[in-house]
Amino acid sequence: MEHGGRLGAARRQFPGAPEPFLDLSTGINPIPWPVPPLPPEAFTRLPEPEAEAALRAVAAAAYGAADPAMVAAAPGTQLLIQLLPRLFPQPALRVLSPTYAEHAACWRAAGTAVAEVASFAALDGPADGPGAALLCNPNNPDGRRYAPEELRALADRMAARGGLLVVDEAFAELEPDTPGAAALLPHPALILLRSFGKSHGLAGVRLGFALASPERAAAIRAALGPWAVSGPALAIGRAALADTAWREAAAARLAADSARLDALLAGAGLRVRGGTRLFRLAEGDAAAWHARLGRAGILVRRFSGQPRWLRFGLPGDAAAWARLAAALGG
Amino acid sequence: MEHGGRLGAARRQFPGAPEPFLDLSTGINPIPWPVPPLPPEAFTRLPEPEAEAALRAVAAAAYGAADPAMVAAAPGTQLLIQLLPRLFPQPALRVLSPTYAEHAACWRAAGTAVAEVASFAALDGPADGPGAALLCNPNNPDGRRYAPEELRALADRMAARGGLLVVDEAFAELEPDTPGAAALLPHPALILLRSFGKSHGLAGVRLGFALASPERAAAIRAALGPWAVSGPALAIGRAALADTAWREAAAARLAADSARLDALLAGAGLRVRGGTRLFRLAEGDAAAWHARLGRAGILVRRFSGQPRWLRFGLPGDAAAWARLAAALGG
Repeated sequence: MEHGGRLGAARRQFPGAPEPFLDLSTGINPIPWPVPPLPPEAFTRLPEPEAEAALRAVAAAAYGAADPAMVAAAPGTQLLIQLLPRLFPQPALRVLSPTYAEHAACWRAAGTAVAEVASFAALDGPADGPGAALLCNPNNPDGRRYAPEELRALADRMAARGGLLVVDEAFAELEPDTPGAAALLPHPALILLRSFGKSHGLAGVRLGFALASPERAAAIRAALGPWAVSGPALAIGRAALADTAWREAAAARLAADSARLDALLAGAGLRVRGGTRLFRLAEGDAAAWHARLGRAGILVRRFSGQPRWLRFGLPGDAAAWARLAAALGG
Repeated sequence: MEHGGRLGAARRQFPGAPEPFLDLSTGINPIPWPVPPLPPEAFTRLPEPEAEAALRAVAAAAYGAADPAMVAAAPGTQLLIQLLPRLFPQPALRVLSPTYAEHAACWRAAGTAVAEVASFAALDGPADGPGAALLCNPNNPDGRRYAPEELRALADRMAARGGLLVVDEAFAELEPDTPGAAALLPHPALILLRSFGKSHGLAGVRLGFALASPERAAAIRAALGPWAVSGPALAIGRAALADTAWREAAAARLAADSARLDALLAGAGLRVRGGTRLFRLAEGDAAAWHARLGRAGILVRRFSGQPRWLRFGLPGDAAAWARLAAALGG
């Protein structure tokens, strides 16, 4: 499976590149929430149930879910993506594609017949067919996005067939016009996924959430068992998700930075197809640009199914902007 | 499910107890491996595959497995306990009991018929019956232990029936006479579990391992997906598992301390039934002792199925020893 963020592989591919490598291959906020010194007990003690309950309460408030009973916390969203097909098996699933490839792979591994569809409308199969669908909202890598009313209508149709609608909101948090669909909960068919690490620039912490009906959320928590979330992740997540001032400042900064990145890409002759405030999708001679940037020590993301696409994460400081500008313009 | 380490609940049960509460309710090393300052990238970056491979290599060496391909790293052993019944379904399973209760509960939740048996010999069911068995070695809470040759013979019989032998070695690491059964790998039926947090006093980090045949280990890694282990856990685990000098010193210290604890317990009229270097199992008027110790701000572990048992973790410093001695002797 292809993934961004693999600097080890990039260094092998571009052995003469200047160091440090600049990793623009992911959609992770380049300016992390500032982690304070953690109490030793975060490392030494088994996390207490009260700490997990407090994290779920803060997450419910941050994401707009009415009740912490609708929240399950996990060591990263990826583990939830792995778990959902085993917990809520479906004979068939439609996935709005292209998108984050782990979704289709994990459902297929569990025996589900996965159809990749190109439009939101096509997520809705025949009324007598299986009723499971999945999309990323906004989508990775093209930024396509759908309003809560559209999601509600689709979720209702899935529920009528006893099915499921999974919406991965990994990139929703810092966007202006996708408030997320947590206000639709509880809903019998809807499961939302939220990624703490991307928005807060703390992907190594491993913290993600599922938001769903209390029954589904309880089933996810039971499958993860006690202590799935580490002491450091509990302490960091609880403080960071309550820090709305930081989140608002990050969203404003990234709005400006993503416009700046679009201008840089356009100036280099690349066509910007879309994206979010954490990444931009460009179209052009992707192979040549990937190689040229790689030789300059800058890693961006290609897509095997889309040979002209390149995804750019956001530079995090003046030096990174200058390196990218030089590599794109030189 | 009852668990040790729940100070929140203890404070509600013993509201007038002196603080800080002394938690002797778990089998976690009270003197942790000293965590150095972690690089910021451990928190900010998505863990790289190379870091996980390096951790698996160090774990294989520390636990005596011949090949890192026989290792899967997880965010805590508990998540592996949750996962095994879904990954390797069995119609029926015998569990050497009483033991850590999550094993039976997780297999039952997956639909397996679980029989709790009282002796090692009884783990071996009829030759035409299902062939799955599970034990903790050494056992928690009584410290019963079995030699690798006994485990090999049992694993062979399970393999002959296409079954499974799961051995939870959570408390093996610091023991003198249970080197663990990793030298029996690869074996078609055998899966071993190792807990990093207990031996290294870092339960909040969430790091555990499964050791099994390369095929089973790969299936476990695939089910966990990429990045299941956090950046801090990768950094800490890799350094700590390579620190054999620390481990040897910890084992020697805990050997002396567990003998000292036995003497204290015997002096208080409790009968020591066994244990490991990380906990001791005592028998006596458990309800009265639990309440008396709780009022003194000391939490120990009771067992609902064994009303006369009390498990004591090891005190970690002179003040803790003094408090325990006073509460036991006063």
